[in-house]
Amino acid sequence: MSIKNLLKPNVIAVIGASDRPGFSKNTSKNLLYTEEPKRVYFINPKKDELFGKKCYNNLAELPESPDLVILCVNAGLVPQMLREAADVGCHSAVVYASGYGETGKPEGLKLQDELSELCEELGMLVMGPNCAGYINFIDTVYAFGLGVDKAERAGRVGLISQSGQIALNAVNMEYGDYSYIISAGNSSVVSMEEYFDFLVEDPDTAVVTLYLEGPQKPAEFVRALEKAAKRKKPVVILKTGRSEKGSQIASSHTGSLSGADQVFDAMFKKYGVIRVNDMEELLSTSQLFATLDKLPAGPNVSVMCLSGGETAISADVGDMEGVNYPMFAPETLEKIRELLPSYSTPNNPLDTTATLAHDREGYANLVKTVMSDPGVDLVVCGFTVHKRVKDRVTTDIAEALVRAKEDPDAKPIVMMPFMESSRAPEIRDLLREANVPILPTSTYGFRLLKNLGKFVTFDISEKASACGPAEESIAGKPLTYLSEYNSKNKLAEWGIPSAESRLVNTEEEVQQAIRDLGFPLVAKICSADILHKTDIGGVRLGIDDEAGAMEAFAEILANAKKHEPDANIEGVLFQKMVDKGVEIIIGVKNDPQLGPAVMCGLGGVFVEMFKDVSLCPAPISRKEATDMVMSLKSAQLLTGYRGSAPLDIEALVDVIVRVGDMAKAQKDSLVEMDINPLFVYEKGVCAVDAVLAYAE
Amino acid sequence: MSIKNLLKPNVIAVIGASDRPGFSKNTSKNLLYTEEPKRVYFINPKKDELFGKKCYNNLAELPESPDLVILCVNAGLVPQMLREAADVGCHSAVVYASGYGETGKPEGLKLQDELSELCEELGMLVMGPNCAGYINFIDTVYAFGLGVDKAERAGRVGLISQSGQIALNAVNMEYGDYSYIISAGNSSVVSMEEYFDFLVEDPDTAVVTLYLEGPQKPAEFVRALEKAAKRKKPVVILKTGRSEKGSQIASSHTGSLSGADQVFDAMFKKYGVIRVNDMEELLSTSQLFATLDKLPAGPNVSVMCLSGGETAISADVGDMEGVNYPMFAPETLEKIRELLPSYSTPNNPLDTTATLAHDREGYANLVKTVMSDPGVDLVVCGFTVHKRVKDRVTTDIAEALVRAKEDPDAKPIVMMPFMESSRAPEIRDLLREANVPILPTSTYGFRLLKNLGKFVTFDISEKASACGPAEESIAGKPLTYLSEYNSKNKLAEWGIPSAESRLVNTEEEVQQAIRDLGFPLVAKICSADILHKTDIGGVRLGIDDEAGAMEAFAEILANAKKHEPDANIEGVLFQKMVDKGVEIIIGVKNDPQLGPAVMCGLGGVFVEMFKDVSLCPAPISRKEATDMVMSLKSAQLLTGYRGSAPLDIEALVDVIVRVGDMAKAQKDSLVEMDINPLFVYEKGVCAVDAVLAYAE
Repeated sequence: MSIKNLLKPNVIAVIGASDRPGFSKNTSKNLLYTEEPKRVYFINPKKDELFGKKCYNNLAELPESPDLVILCVNAGLVPQMLREAADVGCHSAVVYASGYGETGKPEGLKLQDELSELCEELGMLVMGPNCAGYINFIDTVYAFGLGVDKAERAGRVGLISQSGQIALNAVNMEYGDYSYIISAGNSSVVSMEEYFDFLVEDPDTAVVTLYLEGPQKPAEFVRALEKAAKRKKPVVILKTGRSEKGSQIASSHTGSLSGADQVFDAMFKKYGVIRVNDMEELLSTSQLFATLDKLPAGPNVSVMCLSGGETAISADVGDMEGVNYPMFAPETLEKIRELLPSYSTPNNPLDTTATLAHDREGYANLVKTVMSDPGVDLVVCGFTVHKRVKDRVTTDIAEALVRAKEDPDAKPIVMMPFMESSRAPEIRDLLREANVPILPTSTYGFRLLKNLGKFVTFDISEKASACGPAEESIAGKPLTYLSEYNSKNKLAEWGIPSAESRLVNTEEEVQQAIRDLGFPLVAKICSADILHKTDIGGVRLGIDDEAGAMEAFAEILANAKKHEPDANIEGVLFQKMVDKGVEIIIGVKNDPQLGPAVMCGLGGVFVEMFKDVSLCPAPISRKEATDMVMSLKSAQLLTGYRGSAPLDIEALVDVIVRVGDMAKAQKDSLVEMDINPLFVYEKGVCAVDAVLAYAE
Repeated sequence: MSIKNLLKPNVIAVIGASDRPGFSKNTSKNLLYTEEPKRVYFINPKKDELFGKKCYNNLAELPESPDLVILCVNAGLVPQMLREAADVGCHSAVVYASGYGETGKPEGLKLQDELSELCEELGMLVMGPNCAGYINFIDTVYAFGLGVDKAERAGRVGLISQSGQIALNAVNMEYGDYSYIISAGNSSVVSMEEYFDFLVEDPDTAVVTLYLEGPQKPAEFVRALEKAAKRKKPVVILKTGRSEKGSQIASSHTGSLSGADQVFDAMFKKYGVIRVNDMEELLSTSQLFATLDKLPAGPNVSVMCLSGGETAISADVGDMEGVNYPMFAPETLEKIRELLPSYSTPNNPLDTTATLAHDREGYANLVKTVMSDPGVDLVVCGFTVHKRVKDRVTTDIAEALVRAKEDPDAKPIVMMPFMESSRAPEIRDLLREANVPILPTSTYGFRLLKNLGKFVTFDISEKASACGPAEESIAGKPLTYLSEYNSKNKLAEWGIPSAESRLVNTEEEVQQAIRDLGFPLVAKICSADILHKTDIGGVRLGIDDEAGAMEAFAEILANAKKHEPDANIEGVLFQKMVDKGVEIIIGVKNDPQLGPAVMCGLGGVFVEMFKDVSLCPAPISRKEATDMVMSLKSAQLLTGYRGSAPLDIEALVDVIVRVGDMAKAQKDSLVEMDINPLFVYEKGVCAVDAVLAYAE
């Protein structure tokens, strides 16, 4: 059983081939594109011939055993057809039929389970059910249920879509160059992750593109992300569900700031995935990667426009989207001055003025000059190609770009238009041949450049990898919370420092705690059943003599018994009262799909107001932990603000790394952690309160 | 002299008409589109005929006096030609010639001044110089120097562009329906604001669209904004210069948070201007307004898509762009359930599934059902029209939308595609006739819906208007800073409360201050020359007896003399030490172009870290001031946070309104104000420190 028989078959049989409008007619017609030496057979016992091809009565009649059968039959007939396929030695099938799990109804779910069991029994790989099939552009296999034109050429973008409509839109994309388009459907037999892994491995696919509603086998999903990252193969994902953020309100404070979508975001960041917002960005980002013959060496771009207006827009929109415009080197400025009229001001973005618009040689030289700047990694020609080429400017500019690309050492060039428009095909063809992509309109265009820049600066070696969820799902398991004392002891095992403390149950133990810790002290009720200690009068601050300590001990126990009579009381925790540092909150949320992620943010009232937090899946490298801290807007409070001394960021980084190691090691049981606050000082850090929760 | 002769001429003469490629040939050919009863004359003494039309030797030879002359001559000939025009009674001209102010060189600037003086002398209105002219689509006058096709139809979008290239791109927009496109050039005679005012008044123009690098007559610019707002005419502006934010570092703290671009933003917000980011958003937002036959009654939209994938994307991108999806009413849900298959889940955005894709009547009914929901103001059909219509779905959906629009009470409908593509013209025409615009691709599309929603909910009556700059520019005037004491006295004149204080210069006055104020006290050096009092040991807190007060008095004076020997010392300010409230910062920045704007933000170290500020041009209504406060992320600190009591927002609003009134009344002299901090309490507010600066 190899997925290659499913996706790269040599012999294909269409079961239920017909000329009635719908999936079966579309599939039959699409498969007429198939070329020798591949063979296609139509099976329809009621017909002798279809679209000029012979029809067979059944699989057994075929002169050879197919690698793949495509079932254009409804769900009721699917099991029998799969058995017949297995009987002739075929173990791959595309199943279009619907009425399975996608209905959300018991009958459909049952049907889907039965299909899976049957495939298990027969050793059968099935794409679908409820899918639109796939197109393999490399080998010209159009096993696709929607009517499509034959593509002009094969490309390097491999797309997997969990929506048939989106796959169809990709097929209809003007100038989309794909290796594979896979409409995976319910993927109840062959999972989305298996296609993903196939494309990561596939030498014909340079970019892997996913429309994702959710992973099916999260651990394998994460492994595929890691494999792609290590191979430096770009992965572009449109993952929906962002706006459901607020819907999953977790029980811990940390949870409320790191809902599942943020975990996806963090995981994508860890593995250098390009996450996009909509279909246009998904497909055009992918095409950008696939059209360039080489990627830029860095994120720095130069934009050149024929007019001051377009140059100003490029400066603003580029800045808004986070694109980096380096200053030109003095020698570049000098050379540009020679090429441009005296009244122009060389700058990046560069207003070239229209003086070279009809001078191919001159404009090509200008592009080469900009390209030669040591700080520039990619040149953007800001220019709108319209539907019809009305004057020579468009052709002259395009020809100049082609000329500038002739040098084998030429840096990447892209063209970016400022308006949506049909683009004159002759110009697009010309540029595509020279590996110069035309980006979508500026807001998208600059976002694409940002995506590209992020990818080329991504370095997997800086990341601690091997992330992933618990072996056995922790979702829905009941939680056991540890008391503050036990939580801090667990942290201590991983080298995470807390304020020194003693758990006491008798007056003698109070005296011993005073001898051990000195004054001033803090006393807190210690019980896994009491999460909000202050609310029940379970906390006393600033205890500075023995009488106060004794009084606090008695009162706290009395308050606890009064307000939480059923709570299991471990005792009273006496803790050395520590100086106030900058308040940081560190948390862990073990995501049922993606595994544990560590959150770090500014504590106090501002944490919720400004949502100034960063998140990273465990484990976490020192570099990642440092990035987490420095990406906070409030990082200034740590680095030294308005003359205050810089604080011990290294110690904070230590804690984050250790929390990450702990979360990874305990991913099968540790569900939540909340260190709030962790005080950061000029020297060292100290966890002041903490609570951990384990799945039972 | 009326701008109507310039923009709506009946008789037009082209001076320098020719068939040599360039502006003169383009203009001559463009003017062949002119229709009776308008007349066009070509003037070229070297030719008898051009493009089948007679050429005249000069203006005097013409059978009638033109309303407008178009000068296709270089700068050297311009003055003579203008004189000849004036001699025959023509007082409007388009001047393409360049070499004026746009060069930035002294010769060019001089030439421009001379042109202005000449026009003043002759009573001549000139468009340009250095412009591309204009197209009046209403009257079919193509006084335009770039070659363009004749538009299929006149529209309702009036565009003024300070860039010729951008005007040309607008002309080339597929399906752009314009009333006027004006390439204003240097606008050194007729200003950009005069065209703006013309379009605001023009009955043929429903939407005014500006590509703006900067206003030329800011006071008139603001007046035009106000006039448009009062007439409820949409104004869409692409203003460049956003990314220069950091470039203008103002001296006061407030200044650094409210650079000029933010003042534009605030002014645009005050007058309901739709500010956009790029050319695509500029032109397509304008076309959206112009294509709808009526605007939606409110901002709430419903999106309908044929697939779950597109529905999910619509939910996410809509949410990201701030689009409001109301819940459907129970009766709508009921009706939708009847129309859709049993497995679908009615929701907004709505996954219609593909079941009605071929059922025009059924899909039209579904659209009507969604439209009938009382909470829905506009219906979005999320669907990608491709270049070629390959199957019936596209036509069926489009026809269904047309059908749903037939009811005269139908709410607005738009179609939104998910990918850039050429759109099949027959579909676009069909929908355009039914006033159903096709938006640009989803990220733009949702932004457009947000723009539309903002416009229809904008209410000028909530705003205090009549904003604008100082009569005489305050730019570059030297500033006089007031001491804290004098600053607070000025604030007191406008009813803005400060901590009670006494300015003392003798030990007797210290004793009197103690009698008046009681303890504890704060003492601060009082000098307009010392802005950073703490740095020189000029502040003492927590004084609680007479000895301490005397010591502070002596020490502060000594420190000031030591560190700032040249400072003019007004005395020592003794102030009642007030309780700490929530720290707010209120400032005024008198923008040289747009006039005074008031800033309000969270004080303390967080003001700079989170840039949590709001800005509004003065004067400010109570509603605006309340919006300013409530739009702060930190507003939660004022409304009652985690059980703390709500603070006196009304008193804070009072201060903002009064600061606005003061800034407006003193706009010719007050340049900066900085109240930092203003403490807000459960009852009342108190300005703790303040500094005002006036232009000398």
